[in-house]
Amino acid sequence: MKPLIAALRRQPLERPPIWVMRQAGRYLPEYRRIREQHPFREAVSDPDVATEITLLPLRRFDLDAAIVFADIMTPLEAMGVEVEYSPGPRLRPMSPGKVAELPDPDPAGIEPVIETIRRVGAQVAPEVAVIGFAGAPTTLLAYLLEGSGSKDFPRLRRALVSQPRATSAALVRLAEAMRSYLSAQIGAGADAVQLFDSWAGVLSRAQFADLAGPSAAATLERLEAPTIYFAPASGHFLDLLPMVGADCYGLDWRIPIDRAWKTLGEVAVQGNLDPAVLLTDPDTIRRTAARVLEEAGGRPGHVFNLGHGIHRDTPPEHLQVLVETVKG
Amino acid sequence: MKPLIAALRRQPLERPPIWVMRQAGRYLPEYRRIREQHPFREAVSDPDVATEITLLPLRRFDLDAAIVFADIMTPLEAMGVEVEYSPGPRLRPMSPGKVAELPDPDPAGIEPVIETIRRVGAQVAPEVAVIGFAGAPTTLLAYLLEGSGSKDFPRLRRALVSQPRATSAALVRLAEAMRSYLSAQIGAGADAVQLFDSWAGVLSRAQFADLAGPSAAATLERLEAPTIYFAPASGHFLDLLPMVGADCYGLDWRIPIDRAWKTLGEVAVQGNLDPAVLLTDPDTIRRTAARVLEEAGGRPGHVFNLGHGIHRDTPPEHLQVLVETVKG
Repeated sequence: MKPLIAALRRQPLERPPIWVMRQAGRYLPEYRRIREQHPFREAVSDPDVATEITLLPLRRFDLDAAIVFADIMTPLEAMGVEVEYSPGPRLRPMSPGKVAELPDPDPAGIEPVIETIRRVGAQVAPEVAVIGFAGAPTTLLAYLLEGSGSKDFPRLRRALVSQPRATSAALVRLAEAMRSYLSAQIGAGADAVQLFDSWAGVLSRAQFADLAGPSAAATLERLEAPTIYFAPASGHFLDLLPMVGADCYGLDWRIPIDRAWKTLGEVAVQGNLDPAVLLTDPDTIRRTAARVLEEAGGRPGHVFNLGHGIHRDTPPEHLQVLVETVKG
Repeated sequence: MKPLIAALRRQPLERPPIWVMRQAGRYLPEYRRIREQHPFREAVSDPDVATEITLLPLRRFDLDAAIVFADIMTPLEAMGVEVEYSPGPRLRPMSPGKVAELPDPDPAGIEPVIETIRRVGAQVAPEVAVIGFAGAPTTLLAYLLEGSGSKDFPRLRRALVSQPRATSAALVRLAEAMRSYLSAQIGAGADAVQLFDSWAGVLSRAQFADLAGPSAAATLERLEAPTIYFAPASGHFLDLLPMVGADCYGLDWRIPIDRAWKTLGEVAVQGNLDPAVLLTDPDTIRRTAARVLEEAGGRPGHVFNLGHGIHRDTPPEHLQVLVETVKG
């Protein structure tokens, strides 16, 4: 069994598998070169380019997974939502009622992502897992209502209070659509899938318990591959996360992995080295990575990762130091 | 005794006092009119203008406090740091070592804030408290190292890991400077002071326990007026907050007030209505404010406030509805 999948199933391993969020990203000069030729949407729409980008970090580092190159907004475009990237997503703000009426993703619209997964699966070494992903309903709704990124998405929070029924219907719609999107990725060969709930942390405990958690759970329900749920800055409802029913929970750097794991119980965990550590120096990287390993204590079910996406200013050789430390 | 001060000292009151973070702000048309004539730095530097702005919300609403019009960066300018506002603060990023060498605020530089507090104190009704404030060392350091606002201040987090001694010295320096700034505000008549730790929530539990918490505690130590400490998005170290030694803790909207209060223990609490609620409608505002009051349960030591600054798109009449609900 591929080491990542074994870890997600909490099988004992000699050392934790490692991959890194945003590992095919701007910190890599070869990524920046490709992106000079291919704007974001073109890169995602062309399986030749997307496959090449997905594989870039694997050519440099001894990583245990490739994550398909796409964006959480990609399937929304296949649902008829017009999205610009500048560089973050921009779109015309929608009402929850309109979101609830969005169609399923057009298969032709998601086909480039699906085809990229097929090609990546055919090209990676047999022990390397292919990870598919989607944005969680709450996080997608945050962008759809706000029209862009935001510090704390007041329009989402307003809608949750003043239009609870329409908001709930919108989340149900997005959960169905993302479940079918993830299911198609698994059908194409994704060995595991991660649900990114990047903005669930702006919600209150009650809002997570009533809406964000259940809609994430509905997205992942009965998928035929191991699932990872990642909601950064969610320490105020850490004890509620298991309602999502994922096999593994991503942890940011805010809570030590042993403490968080105790709260989460019998699941796998992924994380949680602060990506800012990769901006320092090799000694500091080795020392802090060793601390994460110590906190994880060799327990089955640990996937080594950063607590957030790798920072664009990271020197690639610092990631090399990290991978060697974890593998060594 | 002024109701706000009585609440901060946890004396029984018939109803909680109320004030609102950023109550003299862009949601008020009269504020926007004044600011068309006076750019931010000019408004802060002229006690005539700053006093007028500070008093604006008191002319409209039955609030229990006036908070002096200034910015958390204002005293840094009196320490020789050049700050632009566009609209958020922008400055040349500094090293922790340079921050540790900053001088005390030049008394002439903070005099407009001090004079504004004197004038506001002379003009408000006797039962209205005057609140002074400062930025907490961690939050100021976040801006000084990053040079601007940021989603999660990677340069601060990098410095905490790779330059722990210089960073600690910088926090000590900022704590001393902000303590003297707050002390001068109290000397001029501030009845209470609030320490804004707007970005402490990006830190890990260990970083809060080792650095952010102690530096906030040093800032507030032995001040001669009741103190409020506010660190939004700090639910992952809520149980560590009391090390700051404040009389009162501000709570954002993420954790219900009764649950948070149980963790914090024998202190006053301030908050925690989601400011997004004021973007909805009168019925929703009344209903949600009633829920906060119910969660506070009439216990001594509750200061009604929002869980964050009032949103600039808030219709002023919605704040009127809130004040009437809390006072009614």
